[in-house]
Amino acid sequence: MKINNQHYRTIWTDQDQPAAVCIIDQRQLPHRFVIERLTDPEQTRIAIRDMHVRGAGLIGATAGFGMYLAAIHASEKNFDQEMVQAGQRHNNSRPTARNLGWAVDRVLEAIRQKQTPQGKRAAAFNVACAIADEDVEFCRRIGRHGLTLIEEISRKKKGRPVNILTHCNAGWLAFVDFGSATSPIYAARDAGIPVHVWVDETRPWNQGSRLTAWELQQENIPNTLITDNAGGHLMQRGDVDLVLVGTDRTTRTGDVANKIGTYLKALAARDNNIPFYVALPSSTFDWSLENGSDIPIEERSGDEITTTTGITSDGRIETVSLAAPGTKAANYSFDVTPAKLITGLITERGIVAAKKEAIRQMFPDCF
Amino acid sequence: MKINNQHYRTIWTDQDQPAAVCIIDQRQLPHRFVIERLTDPEQTRIAIRDMHVRGAGLIGATAGFGMYLAAIHASEKNFDQEMVQAGQRHNNSRPTARNLGWAVDRVLEAIRQKQTPQGKRAAAFNVACAIADEDVEFCRRIGRHGLTLIEEISRKKKGRPVNILTHCNAGWLAFVDFGSATSPIYAARDAGIPVHVWVDETRPWNQGSRLTAWELQQENIPNTLITDNAGGHLMQRGDVDLVLVGTDRTTRTGDVANKIGTYLKALAARDNNIPFYVALPSSTFDWSLENGSDIPIEERSGDEITTTTGITSDGRIETVSLAAPGTKAANYSFDVTPAKLITGLITERGIVAAKKEAIRQMFPDCF
Repeated sequence: MKINNQHYRTIWTDQDQPAAVCIIDQRQLPHRFVIERLTDPEQTRIAIRDMHVRGAGLIGATAGFGMYLAAIHASEKNFDQEMVQAGQRHNNSRPTARNLGWAVDRVLEAIRQKQTPQGKRAAAFNVACAIADEDVEFCRRIGRHGLTLIEEISRKKKGRPVNILTHCNAGWLAFVDFGSATSPIYAARDAGIPVHVWVDETRPWNQGSRLTAWELQQENIPNTLITDNAGGHLMQRGDVDLVLVGTDRTTRTGDVANKIGTYLKALAARDNNIPFYVALPSSTFDWSLENGSDIPIEERSGDEITTTTGITSDGRIETVSLAAPGTKAANYSFDVTPAKLITGLITERGIVAAKKEAIRQMFPDCF
Repeated sequence: MKINNQHYRTIWTDQDQPAAVCIIDQRQLPHRFVIERLTDPEQTRIAIRDMHVRGAGLIGATAGFGMYLAAIHASEKNFDQEMVQAGQRHNNSRPTARNLGWAVDRVLEAIRQKQTPQGKRAAAFNVACAIADEDVEFCRRIGRHGLTLIEEISRKKKGRPVNILTHCNAGWLAFVDFGSATSPIYAARDAGIPVHVWVDETRPWNQGSRLTAWELQQENIPNTLITDNAGGHLMQRGDVDLVLVGTDRTTRTGDVANKIGTYLKALAARDNNIPFYVALPSSTFDWSLENGSDIPIEERSGDEITTTTGITSDGRIETVSLAAPGTKAANYSFDVTPAKLITGLITERGIVAAKKEAIRQMFPDCF
């Protein structure tokens, strides 16, 4: 998608020596647009852990390219063993994100099938590129499938703007391009359907105010920033037609781990008879899990709640404390929305009910 | 309650000339403790509108004392008319707060019954003091009634700490003393019952991180700050035993307007079978309203969402922008929790079901 009218993906390679993976440092958005050049797998691991990059698909793609960097640096003697270790280090960087382990495993599987370090390096590169390209293509298809929902609502509203509420950033910044939850929105815009997006600010990391609002602004999609507290009130007033969110890990029974607070929006959607859809490429399914309560939930530093970073009116980036010294804070990054609250899952293969049997029928090869 | 081990109310008078009403400027908490001296009714109106003071009971008490200042300044010729105008100006300062109109009306009623300007001034002073003293006494009684709920949970938990989640600040800082939602917590502490409070940070004004966490810290009540997004997850995990909140206006049918986001917590409490109580002095009832959707909902500036103010590590107060320039934000300050989601109302007369008939039976003189 576009930044200042120029097309970008969120991650790409640069073959100048040393070979590098390039990312947009999302910690600095929307105040600064900084491209970071990563040249070894310790840097990709830290970029994931410290949220230079974030979001289901982009974490997967970054792990894939991190494994490519690991392959460049692996010794010929202990190549496979060092790759497994690099995979573990990446895996441990964010516990809830399913795409992480999925991408690492894909690269490891590919290098196992090659005999020479040279062949393994080429395989790692090719798989990393394939992961990124597939992410783009799957998100594009999610957009096409999700568009049908927005079209239907638009018809009922006789062309008045369709009001879509989203939480966190499941935009193109969370993937390689298009995004998951945003892809149907971009598809609707391209189809000439008027849409308006309610953007949850998404405390504590403010993905909504810092990323989603900015991303939509860059793409000229009408949007309004709201607090995470406001969605229920808007639904009660009839100002939300559809809730569309992403997910970091989804069980094969349709329970969805997503950014903390998603569950509260799903409850409000049910209470007000508003459709609640989750968009995801199949790479986000954890086919081994029956129960959402088994999804590991990341806990991050309480400092993310007690302090915040922004830009002053004269352009200085400042971190300010919002609470008294000594305030104790607990920072759970995700919650689990049970399948019963979810109207449907929008995948690259189509829209499916959040039910084990329906998911099995759509993904018989994965189950 | 206490600040740095010294007892305070949130509002008091100072009879040095010119006579003044003293408040704690809550915009500056917890970073600075600043007492503000208000000497004319325009200052009290602005203190309410711009949230130097906030919270159901304290808004009422400030309006009462504001009317006393108006009585000092009213001309002998047009005394009653000027008082009515002062009342209207105060009433318009915050639309949702019920205690505001209630306090203004009480003062106007008292001065009408006196013949001389001197008598009217004395009546205004006496009624303002009575409103503040009653607020303290009613909150104290709310604590006594609410304590029975906490005692019961504590018995079931065999003495393990009772985990109470609260939203916004319905603490003593929101009243003249004790608070509404916090009063049962202080009563439990005094009764030797171990409690722990989950404090919602309460975006966008951060009443939780700035006021509630600080207030509880000053009173040595164990507490943990969380994002507004986190409460549902904690309830799913079994880490919340009771939700206790305040209200700015409650209908005679038991629908509750409170800080935006309260409704979402009520939905999560119902989904997890957790008791959800609302604490209020009867002054917060709007006896004229049948339906929560008729409660006026205040909208404030979007700047409260896109910017935030805090203190830097070297002690400077700074306002930083969290979103890109041009980001549009909508800032609804309250939502309405329907009576069906409320386990009970804790009032100064006792605990009552959030049902019209039950409320009528407890308050036959008001209905």
